[in-house]
Amino acid sequence: MPEAGVGRRGFLGGALGVGALAAGGAGFGVAKAVEPDRSADGGTSAVPFYGRRQAGIATPAQDRLAFAAFDVTATDADALQRMLGTWAAAAAQMTAGEPIGSVETAPQVPPIDTGEALGLPAARLTITVGFGPSLFDDRFGLRAKRPAALAELPPLPGDTLDPNRSNGDLCVQACADDPQVAFHAIRNFARLARGTAVLRWSQLGFGRTSSTSTTQETPRNLMGFKDGTNNLKAEDAAAFDRYVWVGAESDQSWMRGGSYLVARRIRMLIESWDTDNLADQEEVFGRAKNSGAPLGGKHEFDPVDLDALKGTQPVIPIDAHIRLASPKTNGGLRILRRGYSYTDGIDPDTGLLDAGLFFLAFQKDPRKQFVPLQRKLGSHDRLNEYIRHTGSGVFAVPPGLSGPGDWWGKALFG
Amino acid sequence: MPEAGVGRRGFLGGALGVGALAAGGAGFGVAKAVEPDRSADGGTSAVPFYGRRQAGIATPAQDRLAFAAFDVTATDADALQRMLGTWAAAAAQMTAGEPIGSVETAPQVPPIDTGEALGLPAARLTITVGFGPSLFDDRFGLRAKRPAALAELPPLPGDTLDPNRSNGDLCVQACADDPQVAFHAIRNFARLARGTAVLRWSQLGFGRTSSTSTTQETPRNLMGFKDGTNNLKAEDAAAFDRYVWVGAESDQSWMRGGSYLVARRIRMLIESWDTDNLADQEEVFGRAKNSGAPLGGKHEFDPVDLDALKGTQPVIPIDAHIRLASPKTNGGLRILRRGYSYTDGIDPDTGLLDAGLFFLAFQKDPRKQFVPLQRKLGSHDRLNEYIRHTGSGVFAVPPGLSGPGDWWGKALFG
Repeated sequence: MPEAGVGRRGFLGGALGVGALAAGGAGFGVAKAVEPDRSADGGTSAVPFYGRRQAGIATPAQDRLAFAAFDVTATDADALQRMLGTWAAAAAQMTAGEPIGSVETAPQVPPIDTGEALGLPAARLTITVGFGPSLFDDRFGLRAKRPAALAELPPLPGDTLDPNRSNGDLCVQACADDPQVAFHAIRNFARLARGTAVLRWSQLGFGRTSSTSTTQETPRNLMGFKDGTNNLKAEDAAAFDRYVWVGAESDQSWMRGGSYLVARRIRMLIESWDTDNLADQEEVFGRAKNSGAPLGGKHEFDPVDLDALKGTQPVIPIDAHIRLASPKTNGGLRILRRGYSYTDGIDPDTGLLDAGLFFLAFQKDPRKQFVPLQRKLGSHDRLNEYIRHTGSGVFAVPPGLSGPGDWWGKALFG
Repeated sequence: MPEAGVGRRGFLGGALGVGALAAGGAGFGVAKAVEPDRSADGGTSAVPFYGRRQAGIATPAQDRLAFAAFDVTATDADALQRMLGTWAAAAAQMTAGEPIGSVETAPQVPPIDTGEALGLPAARLTITVGFGPSLFDDRFGLRAKRPAALAELPPLPGDTLDPNRSNGDLCVQACADDPQVAFHAIRNFARLARGTAVLRWSQLGFGRTSSTSTTQETPRNLMGFKDGTNNLKAEDAAAFDRYVWVGAESDQSWMRGGSYLVARRIRMLIESWDTDNLADQEEVFGRAKNSGAPLGGKHEFDPVDLDALKGTQPVIPIDAHIRLASPKTNGGLRILRRGYSYTDGIDPDTGLLDAGLFFLAFQKDPRKQFVPLQRKLGSHDRLNEYIRHTGSGVFAVPPGLSGPGDWWGKALFG
């Protein structure tokens, strides 16, 4: 176990080995880590890192995403905890808009920070860390600590999952309004992980596809439709308590105050979609493309009337996406969607664009929320003709960090 | 040949087939194409599309990039010109912040615009089109029109080029301050190309790595260094005339007023770079990492003193990047760099991040500018230990479009 009460200076020093500490000392490199100056960016664009909850869940969705899954290569829990402590110290600095350590590194050691975000603002960076089911095998003595809600996702209808874009011992979601700031966070985490964990897969998201606050306009997905109109909004704390935050019902006390993240890489067959006529596109979603209004309504936020008929036919078709995904047809269940549009260039097998939605959803219990919802959507949703789920992961996202010296899951290992 | 004087309405109608025209008529879809309303975004964030030069060269570099290369599958020049005319009409609308055609499409036809940029501002979108050497084979009768300066790039020292990320009959550079706006342009071009051209490769760039105006701060590349401090700046029109714009010296009159684009996907071995010590990193570039000052100077824009000595050794090493790339050691030659940082996730062969610089450079004649420069850099630059050129293309970028009814290279085909 790391020494109790070890400061962040110790973590960042430890991560860089003896060289940095010896050459640096108090005057170099790690000095700023003790007490980051959060006023550097005027305070307007930094999201607080420490707190009861991890940021990046209820935080109004930022514009850009860098996401990564890691596999732990170390075989003892101490090394894993040291890395998590180092990550936490680095995250506190990066989310405050500061470089890791200090830019005034000694000349004969590698710079502590990789440098590409120097001079950029905090850009509302949030760094959210989760644990995959595989972390709870026998390597780290965590088997008894695995929450029942962190079950592997079962095979779901229509799955075409690529194992190289799925799962992982750890996940890191970095969201920011500047993509270079988000990338910088993932890259520096990968670097600080050296010797303890390796990147398993990663995904960039270039545009948010959900609003998670009433202050945000609803963005459009790559099918051209407004997405997430009726998403949970952070202003509704009661709904977050009911659907997102883990509470006393959890079998694992270390997860209380946390949440569960389901990530799905959903490729859109956009070339096929683009040949579909407007009326059909609107029936697939159940909304008007331009205004975002539910069929039968006039404005985006008009209530979704699932009972409305045109003659003998429902105005919103029985297989329309918003009908099947509606809480009204799912016993009231809801999730917090926080996904991003992505493109990864041309699919070499087909010459078509590999683009779509990197779906991220937070919830209290995936077994009771994402899984039944996707089981239904995967079987019946008219959208299925135009999408393929190509990657998948589920992660336990522990509660927030109390302050310097805390790290993700400290109570899990403790 | 397309009918002389055909309007944009004809092009966009033609691109969508008979259905759109028949169903749409004047009241639908293509009506707005005739006279786009450029005041839609307040005029503040739209870059004029028509003009003597193509935008996206001297335009102050936008933050984000979507780039694509296409291969023409049609075998007659008329089809190719119709597509270029359709692209031009679409580009005029998209760069003005408008959807292609109109959002009020008839229900029984596919929407003209794919829709994901609806509601987003123009975001300074520029769309710049170029022609690769392969376009000038026998398919389109263009062999005699190929400029001597559009020679295939010769093999260069250290090349490790992937043919699937290289070359192409056409290239499209879409730059914008919003990545969704840039992606939307490439996607809609790919769609409008259907039946005439197919995507060959594409590349997203998430952060600009060059300033091309004195109004811009110098950004940092993924090695953490300020890049392009001494780049050509648009305010220096004389330098652009001398180094960037094709003039009367061209053997092909249709290229006068244009430029040549060299694209190189330069992967950075960032994990290796990150283990290098600060002093060595600074000697590799010849600049201080934090300030960007040339070694021996104090501030970023201090003159680069290649003669300065420290004892008997040059302050800026003989193999430092800024020495080898300096106009002073290259007979005065310069290029306009306009590149972007990229990442494409994890390299499956190594587990390392596939990230680096998507280098874009405009110039009057690549044979006399990029090629000799890269021949020298590829052989001697100390940076070579940390980079690999993995993709490559050279393109003739014709002059700007005069107005509706013009298209790229109309004078080439004429």
